[in-house]
Amino acid sequence: MIDSKYFYQQAVALAAAGDELYRRGWVPATSGNFSCRLNADSAIVTASGNHKGRLSPSDFIAVDLQAKPISSGKPSAETALHTQLYARFAHIGAVLHCHSPAATVLSMALADSPELVLENYELLKAFDGVDTHATRVSIPIFANTQDIDALAVEADQYLAEHPRCPAYLIRGHGVYCWGKDLDVCMRNLEAVDFLLHCELERMRLSR
Amino acid sequence: MIDSKYFYQQAVALAAAGDELYRRGWVPATSGNFSCRLNADSAIVTASGNHKGRLSPSDFIAVDLQAKPISSGKPSAETALHTQLYARFAHIGAVLHCHSPAATVLSMALADSPELVLENYELLKAFDGVDTHATRVSIPIFANTQDIDALAVEADQYLAEHPRCPAYLIRGHGVYCWGKDLDVCMRNLEAVDFLLHCELERMRLSR
Amino acid sequence: MIDSKYFYQQAVALAAAGDELYRRGWVPATSGNFSCRLNADSAIVTASGNHKGRLSPSDFIAVDLQAKPISSGKPSAETALHTQLYARFAHIGAVLHCHSPAATVLSMALADSPELVLENYELLKAFDGVDTHATRVSIPIFANTQDIDALAVEADQYLAEHPRCPAYLIRGHGVYCWGKDLDVCMRNLEAVDFLLHCELERMRLSR
Amino acid sequence: MIDSKYFYQQAVALAAAGDELYRRGWVPATSGNFSCRLNADSAIVTASGNHKGRLSPSDFIAVDLQAKPISSGKPSAETALHTQLYARFAHIGAVLHCHSPAATVLSMALADSPELVLENYELLKAFDGVDTHATRVSIPIFANTQDIDALAVEADQYLAEHPRCPAYLIRGHGVYCWGKDLDVCMRNLEAVDFLLHCELERMRLSR
Repeated sequence: MIDSKYFYQQAVALAAAGDELYRRGWVPATSGNFSCRLNADSAIVTASGNHKGRLSPSDFIAVDLQAKPISSGKPSAETALHTQLYARFAHIGAVLHCHSPAATVLSMALADSPELVLENYELLKAFDGVDTHATRVSIPIFANTQDIDALAVEADQYLAEHPRCPAYLIRGHGVYCWGKDLDVCMRNLEAVDFLLHCELERMRLSR
Repeated sequence: MIDSKYFYQQAVALAAAGDELYRRGWVPATSGNFSCRLNADSAIVTASGNHKGRLSPSDFIAVDLQAKPISSGKPSAETALHTQLYARFAHIGAVLHCHSPAATVLSMALADSPELVLENYELLKAFDGVDTHATRVSIPIFANTQDIDALAVEADQYLAEHPRCPAYLIRGHGVYCWGKDLDVCMRNLEAVDFLLHCELERMRLSR
Repeated sequence: MIDSKYFYQQAVALAAAGDELYRRGWVPATSGNFSCRLNADSAIVTASGNHKGRLSPSDFIAVDLQAKPISSGKPSAETALHTQLYARFAHIGAVLHCHSPAATVLSMALADSPELVLENYELLKAFDGVDTHATRVSIPIFANTQDIDALAVEADQYLAEHPRCPAYLIRGHGVYCWGKDLDVCMRNLEAVDFLLHCELERMRLSR
Repeated sequence: MIDSKYFYQQAVALAAAGDELYRRGWVPATSGNFSCRLNADSAIVTASGNHKGRLSPSDFIAVDLQAKPISSGKPSAETALHTQLYARFAHIGAVLHCHSPAATVLSMALADSPELVLENYELLKAFDGVDTHATRVSIPIFANTQDIDALAVEADQYLAEHPRCPAYLIRGHGVYCWGKDLDVCMRNLEAVDFLLHCELERMRLSR
């Protein structure tokens, strides 16, 4: 059973996040998609193709954790990347996928790297379980593909081995980020984008 | 006959788009011009020289598809570039022309290139008919000229041969973008500017 | 005699411009100063040292065109650079001086150049008297000094010989821009800053 | 005794500053911390870990100048860096610590430098006691550490020898800035970030 009041509350919160992310330029041209967990077996996710800065509750679809819609409408083509996270980790409550310029450019600039390694940033402490800058946090970079199921399997395998990973990049595409709830997910996304931006600036200075 | 109510509605929608584009810095110093189709034979276009972030319905002129005014006022000097698009493609409903920094700088940096080729970006899927990142989309770059009629002919010839082209650049000048309606045109423009910005960032990293 | 109602109207308009310029980051940390002509012999100019995004009419001082205050308060230390322009050109009605990052960095990067030459930009047509991109517009770059009277003399000599010059830079300091009224001055300033920004981006790509 | 009305007024003012700094992207992902002096022996400082763009008075803790809380709640882990400043200089009334991209990237790019030397910028005059661009202002760069007490000692020793220093950087971490009151502190912070941004741009051009 879908709790329609909770669905509505989560949809309103995701729409507000979408407005903020749109104004930052991270979900241009209807790109990006957002979700929140409803319960142990389901989540709500943005419908396919809407403007992400003007979402309303009717722009969200309930799906089970196999990415099958359980309310009317057509969910985002990337729904399986959201449900993979909810199915793998019971503690994840929200997932945001954005196409920021930094995520797009950096993932393409690191054309031969399977990951971005972040170290010596105080802001690494924004991630759960990190209590010092003197550490290394890896953000994997997956090749882009239109085969979302295959990408979900690749992400799942990586995350099974790296459960503390806070986010991943898809090359030329964008970033996936998550958290126990939407506030924590936004905090993590801000930290990731800040760090990607700093890495890009430092790469410019070194070339 | 001009449908004055429809004229007014379209003008209000274009003025709102102008306000958004001005705040993004894409139409500085009265630059840029905007239009919407009225019907099979006419369109409205911004008057010459106004501040593009403070437009009102009286700042728009109705023109036929030969760029001749059919309401009072002086239309933009670049009106023929708008009407070329409406005359060539019956499905085009809106045209936006902006002078973003990315469009200006990139078109000048590619001084010897007749086109910008975009590939491997997920955001290419924002364009109608593109369903994979694994493709190539060409954005032609025309030399700038004050002979707008000649430029309209050049654009028309190119688009006759490349009907799927989503936008074109004029070197040192800006970008022309279109869509079946204003929302789609804005989506396409956001996608184009995002991609130009990413290309510029990548060019910086490679030099 | 000062027309107090006109003083008030001009001060309110300059305060609104200041708010806009502050939000763009062009007058950080109380930098910048603004003025409007009152009549043939006087102008109002910002007082020394206030936050430029929160100006009120009491933050403006009336001065004669020798930069002497004719109302209470202490005018900006750079008042003579404003009054030089009003004294030299009867058609100038407003002057804006900003410290944008582009003006600061570009004027320092061009350490050995007495001027910045702009050409091939469509946006050059924003300047009065320019009707084609195929032209050259020179923006002189003066050395910075705390001797404002000497700088006013230097600017005056340059402008006597180059009456079409639309703006000048002071190295490591900022830009002075003017127009027949505040709207035209803002348009010119937007055009100048856009062009400085583009030049800076192109310089980055070429190094 | 804590003056609860003054505590409340200062907390409201710091929350408004936080909102502004958050919108600028200088305190992403709950980073940064802010304080104001209450009296000769105490200050209020942000609690540990909150979103810095949505602070309310209950997000502030009163502390003595040995960084011990004297009201309920857990103060920021970096409280000792704030109280060091209040204890060292009786004239300091406010301290802001931010993680701007410019502060983070520049402090890492200057990996072997103990300081950043700023000269020839007109904006140096924003700092108290500076009345010409023809001067040198040093901003020390301390190595980052999770040992805040040790960092407070290092800052204290530096500032004892350089009492006119307007701010310091912590490598890969951010900037600390202060002033006699919150308005002056914001002015100094704007000036510092502007100058860091310009230095970063100039470094890009020279590499």
